[in-house]
Amino acid sequence: MASEKRLEVVTCTAPVNIAVIKYWGKRDEELILPINSSLSVTLHQDQLKTTTTAAISRDFTEDRIWLNGREEDVGQPRLQACLREIRRLARKRRSDGHEDPLPLSLSYKVHVASVNNFPTAAGLASSAAGYACLAYALARVYGVESDLSEVARRGSGSACRSLYGGFVEWQMGERADGKDSIARQVAPESHWPELRVLILVVSTEKKPTGSTAGMQTSVETSALLRFRAEALVPARMAEMTRCVRERDFQAFGQLTMKDSNQFHATCMDTFPPISYLNDTSRRIIQLAHCFNAHHGQTKVAYTFDAGANAVIFTLDDTVAEFVAAVRHSFPPELNGDNPALSPRFLKGLPVEPVPLSDELKAALGTDPTPGVIKYIIATQVGPGPQVLDDPGAHLLGPDGLPKAAA
Amino acid sequence: MASEKRLEVVTCTAPVNIAVIKYWGKRDEELILPINSSLSVTLHQDQLKTTTTAAISRDFTEDRIWLNGREEDVGQPRLQACLREIRRLARKRRSDGHEDPLPLSLSYKVHVASVNNFPTAAGLASSAAGYACLAYALARVYGVESDLSEVARRGSGSACRSLYGGFVEWQMGERADGKDSIARQVAPESHWPELRVLILVVSTEKKPTGSTAGMQTSVETSALLRFRAEALVPARMAEMTRCVRERDFQAFGQLTMKDSNQFHATCMDTFPPISYLNDTSRRIIQLAHCFNAHHGQTKVAYTFDAGANAVIFTLDDTVAEFVAAVRHSFPPELNGDNPALSPRFLKGLPVEPVPLSDELKAALGTDPTPGVIKYIIATQVGPGPQVLDDPGAHLLGPDGLPKAAA
Repeated sequence: MASEKRLEVVTCTAPVNIAVIKYWGKRDEELILPINSSLSVTLHQDQLKTTTTAAISRDFTEDRIWLNGREEDVGQPRLQACLREIRRLARKRRSDGHEDPLPLSLSYKVHVASVNNFPTAAGLASSAAGYACLAYALARVYGVESDLSEVARRGSGSACRSLYGGFVEWQMGERADGKDSIARQVAPESHWPELRVLILVVSTEKKPTGSTAGMQTSVETSALLRFRAEALVPARMAEMTRCVRERDFQAFGQLTMKDSNQFHATCMDTFPPISYLNDTSRRIIQLAHCFNAHHGQTKVAYTFDAGANAVIFTLDDTVAEFVAAVRHSFPPELNGDNPALSPRFLKGLPVEPVPLSDELKAALGTDPTPGVIKYIIATQVGPGPQVLDDPGAHLLGPDGLPKAAA
Repeated sequence: MASEKRLEVVTCTAPVNIAVIKYWGKRDEELILPINSSLSVTLHQDQLKTTTTAAISRDFTEDRIWLNGREEDVGQPRLQACLREIRRLARKRRSDGHEDPLPLSLSYKVHVASVNNFPTAAGLASSAAGYACLAYALARVYGVESDLSEVARRGSGSACRSLYGGFVEWQMGERADGKDSIARQVAPESHWPELRVLILVVSTEKKPTGSTAGMQTSVETSALLRFRAEALVPARMAEMTRCVRERDFQAFGQLTMKDSNQFHATCMDTFPPISYLNDTSRRIIQLAHCFNAHHGQTKVAYTFDAGANAVIFTLDDTVAEFVAAVRHSFPPELNGDNPALSPRFLKGLPVEPVPLSDELKAALGTDPTPGVIKYIIATQVGPGPQVLDDPGAHLLGPDGLPKAAA
């Protein structure tokens, strides 16, 4: 009989992903099966990531979870579904006769602690990174090596796309049990090194409709959403895959913008209607089209998820000029006259300041609107979840409780 | 031979109409044939109307037109199409052997003067009333008694719906020559006396995309618009006709809101996307849904055309409470502290001030936003075009030129 360890602890990180072919609507609420396939770009964890520590021990008396330092209800159904699913996979692995690298009892309780390196208040969807990280950490601690799509998906549909780096598709699948509704890498993060991502964090007054409730209402009421999912998305998935494979930025950018617009169109066709875009979002859309029209080609592309923040795709040779255009049209609001008191407008990858030509300024047209963009995060395509080897990275101490710093 | 009069002059008025099943997109740009049928409510001319005087005389050396007192280019294609069409109908009538009640030569030139009783700056679509009035006045002065749908339609598609009072459908027709693309009254203005209409004039910074260019881009780029026109509108036309016939406000209101939302969804699906709604429009949508939710039924319905202004349908017993709700959520911005310097917030039909219950105030939720609604016009369903018998109403003097007052 193998000697049992008192405490098994693993810490992982997982990335945020941004869909360029959007997921909106489930055909099965319980299993979280989508009405169409989707395709996303994994963002680099240097800028945005979730870190999760999972620990199991025979000393734990119950499953517990801490998010950003605060203990949360571990009984919430989606969390329970993830835990149930990972334990099922672990049991299956053991019964399949695999040697168990972590010979701890499956009946042991788990403690989980998770933090984001970006403010939740920014309105960046953190649930995908969060559930991908949870699935990845649980798999490591329970010694599961099979596909984790289902574990992550049961937490949050789009989380399965955060299990891989680069460009990732979530195949909707056909089976009623969802076994074929899985994430798959279309191309690795090294595939398109010139691609850059800018997140324009928009000031908003209120929290928008949650995406779970929103997409459910959309499925129930929007005939346009049904049509999109059945008749339009399959061809768009094929075309987007081609754009990525061939690094065709023109077509990639156009389809990205069109698919974002179509998603928001189906939100508007929902009853009561859902509006995630606000006047600032629309000004950003206009800015992007003016910028592209000025250059006579698609140099930048926007996409918006269930919120007002814009995510901009562009290439490395265009980042500086577009950031200058954003800064021109949406100048940061200074805190008094002292720039030192204002938060930095540009975060993440360094972007060199460049002057804007008068022609481009004129093409951008509209009067500058200060303060409506809070800040920009410059980032790029990145890898999938990582295991952190440094024991100092654990968010849980030897007692299985959050360290003071977390 | 009949003695020829020197000057034949006619003055007419025509109403604005508001579509509850929206027209967006042409299958023939030249003939102005729509990709789907539409249905509208004719608004009362006591609040909103166009007045047009048409005069023909052998002394006129050229066709001329004055809009709101300013001479405009008579050569613009749509105006020319209307003139050509009315003269064709007049010739046809004469060749069919009808006695001509106005024995003036068809070769005589025409002078037209037209004014709106509402500010163009309000962003209320005036082209429908304008071209309906032009068609009606030209028909009178040229002695044409046949269906005027085509004459009005060639000026502005939705103008054909302003040729009738009450509830009007514009049947898209099937023929390539457009002869069956005509307006028809579904129910007269007396049919639903309790129905009321509130126009919420929203402050906007800029003129939105024109509807002609906008719908052309939509037809070219939006797959959702094509689907809507072909697969969804036919059933909606039948259902809206039933709602009107049976005065079923619940269903009328819901379908009105859904169709407005779907139209704006197809605008969003257009590439580049078109946004007519702004943050104020969206706040009004939310207000309407909160108001209805509070009452547990559809008491008010919004619809938006190609602009940010809201048109609200409700019944006479709800007008006062909803106006109070609007005034609560969007209080008028006072000009300094002197109300006498501010324009009246409520125009048109009188609406008695009533107090809002605390429950309703709480249900409306969001903090009041002052100044974003400029004013409200209260009106109701009204009749079609009228001929004014009073010679004092003519906008053109005996010399065929605009009177000084115009």
